Amino acid sequence: MKSLLSIEQLTKSELTHLVNKAAELKKERGNHADQPLRGQTWAMIFTKSSTRTRVSFEVGIRELGGFPMFLSGNDIQLGRGEPVKDTARVLGRMVHGVVIRTFAQQDVVDFADYSKLPVINALTDDEHPCQILADLLTVQEKIGGWEGKKFAFVGDGFSNMTRSWMWAAKILGFELCVASPDSCKPPADFIRDLGADNVKICTDPKEAVAGAHAINTDVWLSMGQEDQKEKEAEFSGYQLNSKLLANASAGHIILHCLPAYRGKEISEELLEKQADVIFTQAENRLHAQKAVLVELASD
Amino acid sequence: MKSLLSIEQLTKSELTHLVNKAAELKKERGNHADQPLRGQTWAMIFTKSSTRTRVSFEVGIRELGGFPMFLSGNDIQLGRGEPVKDTARVLGRMVHGVVIRTFAQQDVVDFADYSKLPVINALTDDEHPCQILADLLTVQEKIGGWEGKKFAFVGDGFSNMTRSWMWAAKILGFELCVASPDSCKPPADFIRDLGADNVKICTDPKEAVAGAHAINTDVWLSMGQEDQKEKEAEFSGYQLNSKLLANASAGHIILHCLPAYRGKEISEELLEKQADVIFTQAENRLHAQKAVLVELASD
Amino acid sequence: MKSLLSIEQLTKSELTHLVNKAAELKKERGNHADQPLRGQTWAMIFTKSSTRTRVSFEVGIRELGGFPMFLSGNDIQLGRGEPVKDTARVLGRMVHGVVIRTFAQQDVVDFADYSKLPVINALTDDEHPCQILADLLTVQEKIGGWEGKKFAFVGDGFSNMTRSWMWAAKILGFELCVASPDSCKPPADFIRDLGADNVKICTDPKEAVAGAHAINTDVWLSMGQEDQKEKEAEFSGYQLNSKLLANASAGHIILHCLPAYRGKEISEELLEKQADVIFTQAENRLHAQKAVLVELASD
Repeated sequence: MKSLLSIEQLTKSELTHLVNKAAELKKERGNHADQPLRGQTWAMIFTKSSTRTRVSFEVGIRELGGFPMFLSGNDIQLGRGEPVKDTARVLGRMVHGVVIRTFAQQDVVDFADYSKLPVINALTDDEHPCQILADLLTVQEKIGGWEGKKFAFVGDGFSNMTRSWMWAAKILGFELCVASPDSCKPPADFIRDLGADNVKICTDPKEAVAGAHAINTDVWLSMGQEDQKEKEAEFSGYQLNSKLLANASAGHIILHCLPAYRGKEISEELLEKQADVIFTQAENRLHAQKAVLVELASD
Repeated sequence: MKSLLSIEQLTKSELTHLVNKAAELKKERGNHADQPLRGQTWAMIFTKSSTRTRVSFEVGIRELGGFPMFLSGNDIQLGRGEPVKDTARVLGRMVHGVVIRTFAQQDVVDFADYSKLPVINALTDDEHPCQILADLLTVQEKIGGWEGKKFAFVGDGFSNMTRSWMWAAKILGFELCVASPDSCKPPADFIRDLGADNVKICTDPKEAVAGAHAINTDVWLSMGQEDQKEKEAEFSGYQLNSKLLANASAGHIILHCLPAYRGKEISEELLEKQADVIFTQAENRLHAQKAVLVELASD
Repeated sequence: MKSLLSIEQLTKSELTHLVNKAAELKKERGNHADQPLRGQTWAMIFTKSSTRTRVSFEVGIRELGGFPMFLSGNDIQLGRGEPVKDTARVLGRMVHGVVIRTFAQQDVVDFADYSKLPVINALTDDEHPCQILADLLTVQEKIGGWEGKKFAFVGDGFSNMTRSWMWAAKILGFELCVASPDSCKPPADFIRDLGADNVKICTDPKEAVAGAHAINTDVWLSMGQEDQKEKEAEFSGYQLNSKLLANASAGHIILHCLPAYRGKEISEELLEKQADVIFTQAENRLHAQKAVLVELASD
């Protein structure tokens, strides 16, 4: 594996291997003998700010012996002023790998092409592969894996998160039901390209969570969309709370990639009840990303 | 000691131990054999910017073998968007300790509670414990300690600095006289809670500095208050200069935590005359904070 | 050598030594045995932002075993709020060296005086010594050195870049012809102070590039000048392109310190044709600056 640009491009064995590697690195945390990134500087280009993603990558790179170099949107404007291909060619001769959090998937693809460096997609408009790896590790730890399990996603049906989850479902073969208002359902051409019978789309959150072993949600309004208050109204029946989850499978877990808006996509009571799962899921970003870093550094 | 949230909560032996440890680390600077923070990442959450505090912590953490991760108010907004208890629980699983410079003391207390991490108060509205440790180390080096000495503070009588100094006086038992305009005297309930006969409050700076061995001051207007020009007028008689200090003890020292506004709280001539003391005091932030870090890491 | 504040102050043997040292460090890159900055923190004070300069210094300091501490204009305002002499005296007791990118050359000089630290000029209004070292290394690699070669500079004749190149020509003795519009020619008193017969000033770019072995250009409008559109009109005949270069020496190289504005100071076709030289030149910033760091650390 040369880069991690999307879940879509992974094979089943690559995806499974990354989750297992993450579990292994989690067990070994604090053992500093092995430093596969020793002597390496990894640039972290973040057009959008994100504490969680930033902290988990900085700690992870460091724990593997490398040096994280955080470049915010103020420091570097990907594709503005200077073409991506020039920035990529310059950094390609100075650093050893790049983590990119930005808008256009194409910028991440181009950066990998021109820099010749290993590149990690740390969130684009299309995909959020690192989050999905952390989610799968959490599923493995908390409900023993994804085989034969039913997953639900309740909320925005066509965010980067949902897309990456749909690709993971296709690749790993588990049942996934996405419930969202009509206005944010995955479009027909995406579903056709996906071509996965095990991925169901509906508008009724009760249908999605019925019998589900893991129920995932996310903020209704992403960063930069906060003023679209009318969008919020459409989501009024999609809050995860005890009532909605009455028909979920016994022992089900809730996944939330945080930050959480209590009283919006999740009730305070449910969030605090599932806090151990949800904060483990946050922690697992660290371990999942370390697995990706180790994999790319050894290629 | 699990965290350093205030001077108020320290015992005499804890406070003395930290000053002595700082002196020891100062002597050993440059010896990199002992690295008590090896493998650790310490987050530095700075809602307010501060070069001096930032540099001293970054250098200190690094010299102890750790990795400082600076998060400015642009990167992380403590308690805005996401509750402190969520941010604390996420970071609590990723990093090994946290340095916080912010407004509300309660945010620092809550962060320590929810993160389960060692937390250092690097300035809140209530206290500035790291500065007081550096000041006490300077006093030890330059006038042989605080026992039997008289201390004066001339300026804002109820800033975080003055409060931390009053607690230090209570705990260590030295004489402290605070001279400030009526409008910024410590309020009666604080003085009652403090319950320290060795701390005197007055409005006459001459009274405060008479016979004093160490005279402390600070900017009249803190960051964010710069437009309160009328406040400045109240301070007109409170400038530290040769004339005011005529009755101070022979060999007295001046303390100033910097930045200094020449011609306001201190004359140019006095600042440059006492430059060795004042820049030693600045340097001692480094050693004092290293002492706190070593103490918390070994707990 | 205690600091690198300008090209002007270097001797021929110092300048040659730095270029040779850079070539040596380039060959040895990835060998982490020798760490002359081990245990050291180097502050990087950048009043103006710059990805290329920042990345090359952070990677370089790190590869030499040191710790780079980046302080942007938001973090530290050199000479605003606090006099340079105070900031310099504080940092002088905490860090081991300083890299400064700012406006006034005098601030860099004062910082070196008061901090007593090794200081590197990473761009001021007057000079850009690190870029010239990288350029000279590129010249050595791509056309075998500067002896007996003709150099041209086409564009703004009195930028920090041009000034540093004119000093380099004076010190090393190679022929340099600077072509620029009348409005941005080097002033007569500068040329008199320089006192170098081998440096020619003209307005005709064809004259400058005729027989030249290396042709250098830079953006027409520097950061902060982007609204001076009328200035751009004066430069209309100064674009580097195949037609202008028809009479340059066979096998000539193009130097551009980037970022490049295609269709302005250089044509897209020429930039891409010379991409290997130009991105090698960018990479050479890293090696040149490592040579300076090693030199200053060993002083």
